[in-house]
Amino acid sequence: MVSNPVRPLAVSLGDPAGIGPEVVAKCWDGRQAFQLPPFVAIGDPRSVAQVWDGPIETIDDPRQADSVFDYALPLIQILAADGHLPGHPTIAGAHCSLDSLEIAVGLARSGSAAAVVTGPVSKEQLYSIGFAHPGQTEFVAERCGVGRGNVAMMLAGPTLRTVPVTTHVPLDAVSEQLSAALIEALGRTTLRGLQRNFGIAEPTLAVSGLNPHAGEGGMLGREEVDFIQPAVAALCAEGWRVTGPHPADTMFHEAARARYDAALCMYHDQALIPLKALHFEDGVNVTLGLPIIRTAPDHGTAFDIAGQDVADPRPMAAAMRMAAACAVNRELAE
Amino acid sequence: MVSNPVRPLAVSLGDPAGIGPEVVAKCWDGRQAFQLPPFVAIGDPRSVAQVWDGPIETIDDPRQADSVFDYALPLIQILAADGHLPGHPTIAGAHCSLDSLEIAVGLARSGSAAAVVTGPVSKEQLYSIGFAHPGQTEFVAERCGVGRGNVAMMLAGPTLRTVPVTTHVPLDAVSEQLSAALIEALGRTTLRGLQRNFGIAEPTLAVSGLNPHAGEGGMLGREEVDFIQPAVAALCAEGWRVTGPHPADTMFHEAARARYDAALCMYHDQALIPLKALHFEDGVNVTLGLPIIRTAPDHGTAFDIAGQDVADPRPMAAAMRMAAACAVNRELAE
Repeated sequence: MVSNPVRPLAVSLGDPAGIGPEVVAKCWDGRQAFQLPPFVAIGDPRSVAQVWDGPIETIDDPRQADSVFDYALPLIQILAADGHLPGHPTIAGAHCSLDSLEIAVGLARSGSAAAVVTGPVSKEQLYSIGFAHPGQTEFVAERCGVGRGNVAMMLAGPTLRTVPVTTHVPLDAVSEQLSAALIEALGRTTLRGLQRNFGIAEPTLAVSGLNPHAGEGGMLGREEVDFIQPAVAALCAEGWRVTGPHPADTMFHEAARARYDAALCMYHDQALIPLKALHFEDGVNVTLGLPIIRTAPDHGTAFDIAGQDVADPRPMAAAMRMAAACAVNRELAE
Repeated sequence: MVSNPVRPLAVSLGDPAGIGPEVVAKCWDGRQAFQLPPFVAIGDPRSVAQVWDGPIETIDDPRQADSVFDYALPLIQILAADGHLPGHPTIAGAHCSLDSLEIAVGLARSGSAAAVVTGPVSKEQLYSIGFAHPGQTEFVAERCGVGRGNVAMMLAGPTLRTVPVTTHVPLDAVSEQLSAALIEALGRTTLRGLQRNFGIAEPTLAVSGLNPHAGEGGMLGREEVDFIQPAVAALCAEGWRVTGPHPADTMFHEAARARYDAALCMYHDQALIPLKALHFEDGVNVTLGLPIIRTAPDHGTAFDIAGQDVADPRPMAAAMRMAAACAVNRELAE
C-alpha cells in the first residue's frame, strides 16, 4: 500500500517580472524555519532561475509535489514568451500570470491542491490584456461561481483580523457606497468564514463606526444610525455575536482586540492602517466566501526591487502557513 | 542663599465627578515609579479625597509645590458647591473644571508653572454653562492669544507622533474641509512644534494621502493631486523636510515610522487609529503652536468608572512626563 501523499498548496508565482518568483523560492529555502507545508509553484521556471540558484523540478501532477518538496522546488510549468526579466513586465508575462492563477484555482477546485496562494500580479498589465476584474479576488470568485457581493477580503495577522466593507473607492465616496444590506452581507460572510476557515464555532464580530467617535449618536454623521446600527441589529437577530458600531480609534489596542475575532471596517484604510501598523510582515489577505481556500501576501509586484535579492519572503510564508491552517480547519469541520 | 525651587507642572483635575482627580492622585502615589517631576493639582480637594486616601496639602503659591511634593499632593483649591460625587457631573462641577483650567493656564502664562497638563472635562456640561469652544485646546489657545488655525493637536507616543488636519467632522465632510493652505499651516505648526517642544533641530514630516493608496495618481480621488502635493511642495520650498503624500496604510509600521518625526494625517481616525493601536496606555495629546506647553492624557471623564478605583493613571503619567520633557527642551532652546 502506498500512503496518500499530502495535498500541496498551489502557489501561483504572479507576474514573472515581479518579486513573486523570488519570494516563493525563498520560502522553499526557508521551508523548515517558516514551518511550511509542501507546495507546488505554478509559473515560468525561468522567472525563478533568473533570481535564485536553488533546485527546481518541474512536475505534471500535484501529487508529485510531496515527494519532490524535500529536495527541490516543485513547479508546474507555464512558459511565457518573455517577461521574466526582473523589473520589466511584459504582455506575455501578464498572460503567464493569469494562466498560472487559472491553473492554481483549477487544482484547488478539483481537490488536487489543498488551497490556493496567489503571488502578486500587475493589474495594469492585466488590464491591457483584457482582464475585466478589479483584482485576483474577483477573478477567483467568478471561477468558483460566487458573486462578487458574497466574497469578503480579510486581512489577517496573528492578533488582528479586519474586513473592509468598501475597498478601492475615494474616501468621499465611501458613505454613498454603504448600506445596511452591504454591511450585513459582508458581516455574514465574515462570520461564516471565521467558522469555516478559522475553526471558531461561535465567532464574535466587532463592527466599526464610520465617523469620529462612531458619530456621537448622530452629531458627527448619520451613517452609524442609518446603516450600521440596523445591520448590527439584523445580524444579532440571526443569532450571531456582533457588537458595535465602535469608535474606530479605540478598537485596535491589545485589550480591545481580545474582545473579538474579526473587525468589520467601513473603508480600506480603516481596516488596513491597524493591520499593517501591527502586522506589516505577517499580514495575510484571505478571501472569505469561496468554496476553496485562497490566501495572498499583502504586497504588490514591487517591480522596483525585483531581482535584487532584497524582497522579504515573510509575507508569502505567512500566506502559505495561513492557507495550510485554514485547510486543516476546513477538513476538521467537514 | 535659597536655591530656586523647581517650577512645577500645573495640573487641572478636570471635571470633579470624572476620573481626573483619581488618576492625578494615583500619579502622585506612583511619582517615583512613573518618574514624575513635581506638580501641583488644581481643583476641588474633596473630589480627590472622595476617591483617594493619600495626603493632600493645599497651597497658595506654586513655589511651595516643590517642597510639599515629597510628602503630600500639593493642591491649589477651587471649591465647587457640589459635583464631587464620582460619576455624577453637575453644573457646579463644570464651573470648577473651567476655573481650574483657567488658573492652570494662568500659572503657565506667568511663568510660575513649567507647563499645563489638563485633566478630562465634560464638554456636554461645559456647553451647558456657555462654554463656546470646541474643547480645552481652543480655550487654551484663546487665553494665549493664538488663533485656532495656528494650533495643532498632536498625539504623541513613544514611537509615533501624529497630527490630524481635520478633527471632529463627519467623514464625508473631510474632503471639503481640506485645502492646501490648511495642510501647509498645520504642517508648519507641527514642524515648529517638533523643534521647540521636542528639540528636533531638523524635523522630518510625513504627510498622508486621503484616499486608498494615496489616490493612485488621481484614479482613486483628486485630493492628493489638488491639495496635498501642492502643500508638501510649498513646505519643501521653505526648506522643511517634508515627504508625501504617502498611502496611509503603509505609513505606520516600524520601519516606516523610523523615517519621520511626525505624521500629518488628513482626518481624526487616520491619526488616532495607529496611535491608539500602538500606544493606547501612553499616547499623549500635545497642543502645538502655543507660547506655553500644554499636554493632556488622551481619554475622557469616564464617568461610568469614576470612583471605582479602576481608572488607569498611566495616560496621565505619560502626559506629565511629556510636559516635563517639552519644558526641558524649550529651556535648552531659549
